[in-house]
Amino acid sequence: MSKPSIPKGTRDFFPEQAAKRAYLFSIIQNVFKRYGYLPIETPAVEKLETLMGKYGEEGDRLIFKILNSGDYLAKVDETLLTEKHSQKTTALIAEKALRYDLTVPFARFVVQHQNELSFPFKRYQIQPVWRADRPQKGRYREFYQCDVDVVGSDSLLNEVELIQIVHEVFKQLNIEQTTIKLNNRKILVGISEVVGAKDKLVDITVAIDKLDKIGLENVKKELLEKGIAQPVIDKLEPLFFITGDTSEKLEKVAAFVSSSEIGLKGLEELTTVFNTLEKFGISNVEFDITLARGLNYYTGAIIEVVTEGFNGSVCGGGRYDDLTSIFGLKDVSGVGVSFGADRIYDVMLERDLFPKSASVNTQVLLVNFGKSEAEYCLGLAGKLRQANINTELYPDTAKIK
Amino acid sequence: MSKPSIPKGTRDFFPEQAAKRAYLFSIIQNVFKRYGYLPIETPAVEKLETLMGKYGEEGDRLIFKILNSGDYLAKVDETLLTEKHSQKTTALIAEKALRYDLTVPFARFVVQHQNELSFPFKRYQIQPVWRADRPQKGRYREFYQCDVDVVGSDSLLNEVELIQIVHEVFKQLNIEQTTIKLNNRKILVGISEVVGAKDKLVDITVAIDKLDKIGLENVKKELLEKGIAQPVIDKLEPLFFITGDTSEKLEKVAAFVSSSEIGLKGLEELTTVFNTLEKFGISNVEFDITLARGLNYYTGAIIEVVTEGFNGSVCGGGRYDDLTSIFGLKDVSGVGVSFGADRIYDVMLERDLFPKSASVNTQVLLVNFGKSEAEYCLGLAGKLRQANINTELYPDTAKIK
Repeated sequence: MSKPSIPKGTRDFFPEQAAKRAYLFSIIQNVFKRYGYLPIETPAVEKLETLMGKYGEEGDRLIFKILNSGDYLAKVDETLLTEKHSQKTTALIAEKALRYDLTVPFARFVVQHQNELSFPFKRYQIQPVWRADRPQKGRYREFYQCDVDVVGSDSLLNEVELIQIVHEVFKQLNIEQTTIKLNNRKILVGISEVVGAKDKLVDITVAIDKLDKIGLENVKKELLEKGIAQPVIDKLEPLFFITGDTSEKLEKVAAFVSSSEIGLKGLEELTTVFNTLEKFGISNVEFDITLARGLNYYTGAIIEVVTEGFNGSVCGGGRYDDLTSIFGLKDVSGVGVSFGADRIYDVMLERDLFPKSASVNTQVLLVNFGKSEAEYCLGLAGKLRQANINTELYPDTAKIK
Repeated sequence: MSKPSIPKGTRDFFPEQAAKRAYLFSIIQNVFKRYGYLPIETPAVEKLETLMGKYGEEGDRLIFKILNSGDYLAKVDETLLTEKHSQKTTALIAEKALRYDLTVPFARFVVQHQNELSFPFKRYQIQPVWRADRPQKGRYREFYQCDVDVVGSDSLLNEVELIQIVHEVFKQLNIEQTTIKLNNRKILVGISEVVGAKDKLVDITVAIDKLDKIGLENVKKELLEKGIAQPVIDKLEPLFFITGDTSEKLEKVAAFVSSSEIGLKGLEELTTVFNTLEKFGISNVEFDITLARGLNYYTGAIIEVVTEGFNGSVCGGGRYDDLTSIFGLKDVSGVGVSFGADRIYDVMLERDLFPKSASVNTQVLLVNFGKSEAEYCLGLAGKLRQANINTELYPDTAKIK
């Protein structure tokens, strides 16, 4: 018999790792609590219809579907089966699926229970999610998200508070050299208006996003390939040379979008957030005009946290004015961020940031050498435990050598 | 658009409930830690082959299978599909499944990582499991188990320690009127030997188990229907009249199984456990000859906890000498118990046992009446949080009425 194993992209956690993870979660959770956010939990298993169509075509494919119980093929149209039409068969044999993130289930929760909640509703949620992604370094098929959101309020104080939370979490975890990047979707809309390409918003943002990686000439080439006219590209060009500190950048972008009402609105929002954060001494924030993240989803603030030497973000989020409308509840604005616990874990491991106390926890080990010693040990163990000392009893009689 | 909902047998937890659940888990976890057990975590998703055939035919049906990604029908034999042979198709289109309990994944973990563990290995594990059971009051399709096991030691000290843990958990949760019922599989084997029906062990135990519910005459009828001969039933009859306290019962059963070596061995084990527990002042234990629980699985001690007024057990377990052998690793004896967190939650809710502190956790709510007040509130909130006071900021400006 070959050794048993677990599915690709999943992990077992040994005591040492589980204790470290518990430490990480407890820090994050305590900050959430300290800011007055309340815990909720949703089931790992949602109805397939709740999740499908919410993450784009690629997302739909990456959702793990759960096979119906019983004689699941009975009601499926025979033609579908003889033609082996996997895609069309799926919804007929799988009514349930594993949660893909915590945001859509939260939106579902808010709409389903809208009459039992009082708004603004501030919640946090720390639970695993599943994605049929190709497993690779730092990318798992089962991983934890730690989400904190407020819905039912469009005050910018929420953005400020969430960034305070982000700042506090990384501070308490001793993760230095982090940068909180901020942008605002409305500014991106403003840019596309100004250059006269409102319908090319996504292409423009994606291209700008690549500036660092592929350089200006290649970005221009890509824009042309996407069918964006040369005059539009020429108008965009000044954006690529916006440098300086945040207030300088804000000024320059303000000049750029001065003819766009929505662009100026975004700029005003962002400026308010920056100014308030400055008053509270949070300085590792940065205006990043190229930050987009799931653009079709966010409507205001966009937030992302990176840390030096780590590829990819460790936290991200933003404001969504319309998320609950996918379930029929309109005009409930929300804003939230999600911490990628598994990536943060990897960073902390690499930088050796876990304290000794976040380790396996037996403080005393009692070994017995015979029957009467065993009973004595049992009694002693009881006393130690009552004194809050974690005590392990070695159950087998040891031999004196 | 109709309101979204969640699958039958699953639940959302509101802040109030989530906080109570967190309290429950923390008590259980702290007792586990105090006894020197270490945390592990296994993935929710296991290979289907790891789970199938481990829980009996009924169990196989109740395992939630996960549909393969991509064109999952491509490789399936066409005849199976045209004949709509659901059962035979399952293993071909679903390679993964949701964990059904924590015991089999733990056995898999021990075998897979046997060279990285030191034995005896004492672990605890608090994670959800999934079963496609028919949902009903107190029975969910997604629920938590809290397991504590030691493998690699056959010392009876482990049984004693686990019962101490059980006792301590219910004491700390203030759940009174609980009874810890004990039995030993070897005694049941001894009984079947003595009455000359070794092959009818399961039927005999099941029938005995029903004595309280259906009465002696119906038990006898059932035994006959199961093909057990009248002389065997006559020999069994004295067992049904075994009464008295634990030591009286032990004596009477000792007389009954006196001709069976394995029966006497079981009795000796059980007596040792009772005597040791008595020395440490644990008195809510009871010998229950009818206790069987997943008989084909346990080889020694059988443990079950019931509490007055609640139908069904809130905790159960036992010793299994051969569990890891299903994955090819022989001679690793283990013993463990599993707490049914969701049932315990229901009991505590019914008896109003959750302390006030296990509640939603905002201590101060700050409301602002304008822009400058908002900033003042932000600053004040920061100071309160630094003083470990959970502080919520109401983000929208309130109007003075």
